[in-house]
Amino acid sequence: MVTVDPKLKYTIQATQWHARAWTITLNGIALQTPVFMPVGTKWTIKGMSTDWLDTQHLWSGQPINMILNNTFHMYLKPGDQKIKEFGGLHKFQQWDRLILTDSGGFQVFSLGLSKTGKSLVKITPEWVHFRSPYDGSKHFFSPTWVVDIQCNLWSDIMMVLDVCAPTANITRRKVENYMKLTHQWADQQFEYFLGKYNDVRWVLFPIVQWGLDLELRTQSIEHLSKWTIDGIAIGGLSVGETREELNMVLDHISDKLPVDKPRYLMWVGTPEDLINAVARGIDMFDCVMPTRIARHGTAMRLWWNMKLTNSQYRDDQWPLVPWCPCMTCTRYTRAYLHHLVKENEILGGTLLSLHNIAYLHHLCEQMRKQIIAWTFDQRADNMLTIKLAK
Amino acid sequence: MVTVDPKLKYTIQATQWHARAWTITLNGIALQTPVFMPVGTKWTIKGMSTDWLDTQHLWSGQPINMILNNTFHMYLKPGDQKIKEFGGLHKFQQWDRLILTDSGGFQVFSLGLSKTGKSLVKITPEWVHFRSPYDGSKHFFSPTWVVDIQCNLWSDIMMVLDVCAPTANITRRKVENYMKLTHQWADQQFEYFLGKYNDVRWVLFPIVQWGLDLELRTQSIEHLSKWTIDGIAIGGLSVGETREELNMVLDHISDKLPVDKPRYLMWVGTPEDLINAVARGIDMFDCVMPTRIARHGTAMRLWWNMKLTNSQYRDDQWPLVPWCPCMTCTRYTRAYLHHLVKENEILGGTLLSLHNIAYLHHLCEQMRKQIIAWTFDQRADNMLTIKLAK
Repeated sequence: MVTVDPKLKYTIQATQWHARAWTITLNGIALQTPVFMPVGTKWTIKGMSTDWLDTQHLWSGQPINMILNNTFHMYLKPGDQKIKEFGGLHKFQQWDRLILTDSGGFQVFSLGLSKTGKSLVKITPEWVHFRSPYDGSKHFFSPTWVVDIQCNLWSDIMMVLDVCAPTANITRRKVENYMKLTHQWADQQFEYFLGKYNDVRWVLFPIVQWGLDLELRTQSIEHLSKWTIDGIAIGGLSVGETREELNMVLDHISDKLPVDKPRYLMWVGTPEDLINAVARGIDMFDCVMPTRIARHGTAMRLWWNMKLTNSQYRDDQWPLVPWCPCMTCTRYTRAYLHHLVKENEILGGTLLSLHNIAYLHHLCEQMRKQIIAWTFDQRADNMLTIKLAK
Repeated sequence: MVTVDPKLKYTIQATQWHARAWTITLNGIALQTPVFMPVGTKWTIKGMSTDWLDTQHLWSGQPINMILNNTFHMYLKPGDQKIKEFGGLHKFQQWDRLILTDSGGFQVFSLGLSKTGKSLVKITPEWVHFRSPYDGSKHFFSPTWVVDIQCNLWSDIMMVLDVCAPTANITRRKVENYMKLTHQWADQQFEYFLGKYNDVRWVLFPIVQWGLDLELRTQSIEHLSKWTIDGIAIGGLSVGETREELNMVLDHISDKLPVDKPRYLMWVGTPEDLINAVARGIDMFDCVMPTRIARHGTAMRLWWNMKLTNSQYRDDQWPLVPWCPCMTCTRYTRAYLHHLVKENEILGGTLLSLHNIAYLHHLCEQMRKQIIAWTFDQRADNMLTIKLAK
C-alpha cells in the first residue's frame, strides 16, 4: 500500500446523492467542482487569449481556474525542453492558474495512422513508437519519459501513459494483454514519479480504462486504486458510444472509485453529458467541443445547439442566450453573429468560443449551487435552462 | 457661397509648421488629432471585438474613438435597409463612438472586374452600374443614393461618391471628363444632403482627387472648397505610388486646402507615411494594413516590420515591441507569437492585429504630444522609436 500524502487538498462543501460540490486546492488555486476545463491543444485555447477567461469576459462569480494542454503537440512543437527553457507552460501562454496535461497517449494512437488508415504505431513493453503527424518524423514515448515530459512542461496535474488501442475487432486475449501492459506502465510511472519528483508541487493521476467492458473496468479500478493518491481519471469514453452506454459505465464505476478523491472524466462533453456525469459522481471535465463547434458557427445551449449560419438568425435581434452574462451575449445580437459566421470572419469563431466556454462554466456553477442547496435533479431531462449561479 | 454652419467643432491645441494637434468634436465624442482609424470592412475590424479598442487593451491615455466601415460591403450584405432596421451600424457592431464611412466608389471600380480583368463597371452621368463580387448580381449607385445609403447606416462622417476611374492609359480628355463628372456629382450630393439631411447630426466630406496630376489636384481643391463645410478628404493616393510621389502631392496641396478644416488622407498607411503626412498637415488616417499584415504574421514597427514566422523569433523571449504597452506586448513573448503564427492559430492574427492598431494609435499620440511641445521633427527619418504619449 502506498503511503504518500496527497498534495491536492479538498474540502467537501456538499454532496447530494452521488453529486459532489467540493473545493479542491492545489498550488494555491482553489477549484470549485464540478469544473469544466477548456482545452488548449497547442498552447492556446483556439482563438482565445488567456485573459479572456477572466470574470470580466465571462461575467461570472468565479474565473476559470484550470485549462488543459495536450502533451503530444507540445512535445513535438516546440518541444518540452524548449517550454522548460521558456519557464514552463504557465509563463509561455501567460496563464497563472492550474494546467492539466494529458499523457499524449490518445494522440499517439489516434493520429499515428498512415494515409490508408493503417496504424504506424508500434507497442513494445518498454516503448510506444509513433510518427509525427506534422512531418512524419519518428518518435517514441516510454512511460517514464512521458512523466519527465510533463514535468518539463510544468504541468500541475499530469496523466499516466496508457495503451489506447482499439477495443473493437481484436481478440479478448489481446485486450487483456494491453490492459496488463497499461497497469505495468502505471506502476512503473508512479514509482518513478514518486521517487524522482516527490518534492515538486505536481500531481499524477492514473486513468481507468477499458471502454464498455464493465468487467475490465472493475479490474482497472482495482489495480489503480493504490495509485489514486490525488485523484483519478476516467478515459476511453466519449469516443462514439451512446449516451446510455456512457451512463451505464459511469453507473457501474461510480461505487467502485475511491470516494474521497476527485474524479476526472476525460473528453466530456455536451451540457447534457455534464449533467448526467455530475449526477454519477464526476467532478472534472474537459472537451475541445466548445471551441471546435464555435469555429464552425455553432453556439451551445442545453438540448439544442444553435447553428448561427441558419438564415433564421439573419434578422434576429436577440442575444445568443438571453440570460447568459458572457461578453458575447451581453454585447452582440444573433443577427450580428450570423453575419460574422456567414462571412467567415474570424471574430465569429472567437465570440462563439467565448460563449461556449462560458456556457459550460456557468452550467458547472449552477450545478454546484444546486448540489449545495440540495436541489440538483439527477434526471438531466429536468434541467431545461441554466440559471446563473450568483 | 455656402453658408452652412459646420457640425464638426474643433479647438486647436497646437500647430507646429504644417503639423496640427486639434481636438475635433462631433456628436459628443472628442477626437484628438492626428488620429488613425482602424478599418472594419464588414461590420468588424477583422479579428477584433470593438471592446478591445478600449484603453484596457491598448493601455493608452485615450481609447480609439473612431473606426471606418466600408459602405460597399454593407450595402451588399446585409444591406443598408437591414442595418437601419437593426438600429444603425453603431448598435449592430456595438460601437458607441464615431464611425466614418467611405462612399463605396473605390470598391465599385476596383472590385467590379470580370475574371479576365475587364471592367464590368458602366458610368453614366446619373449612375454607376456594377456587379456584386459576392454573387455577380447587378447593382447601381447614384450619387444621391450613396448619401441615402450612408445615412441609413447612421454614419457619423460620410464621403461623397466620386469617379475612381484609372488614370493610366486613358486620354487626357477622358480624365478631364471624369473630373467634371466627379465635381458635378459632388455638387449634386451636397445640395441633396444639405436639403434633406440638414437637421441630422451627420457630416459629409468632399474628396480631393486626381492622382499625381498636380494641376488637376489644384482644380479639384478649387471646385470642392465650397463644400468643405466640416472637413475634406484626400483620395487617390496610397495606390501604388512611391513615397516621394505621395509626399510631392501632399506638399503641393498642403497650402491650397482650407486651413481651418480637418483633413483626412484615405488608405494611409505605414508608420513612416503617417509621420510624413502629419508633417504636411494631415489630421486623419485609415488603412486596412494593420489587420491585413497581422493575419499574415507581421507585426508593425517603425522602419522595419517583424515577420513573426521567421525562425529568428523561435526562442525569442522579448515582448514584440518592448516599450509598447498594448495587451499583446505586455502579456506575450515573440516566441509565443512565432509559434501561434507558424501553426496558423487564429489567436496569432488577433494578437498581432491588436498590437498593430495600438502601435499606430500610440504613434499618433506621440506625434500629438510632440506637436504640442513643439518638438515634432518633420523629417520622419529622425523619428527612430515611438515613445508612449502619457
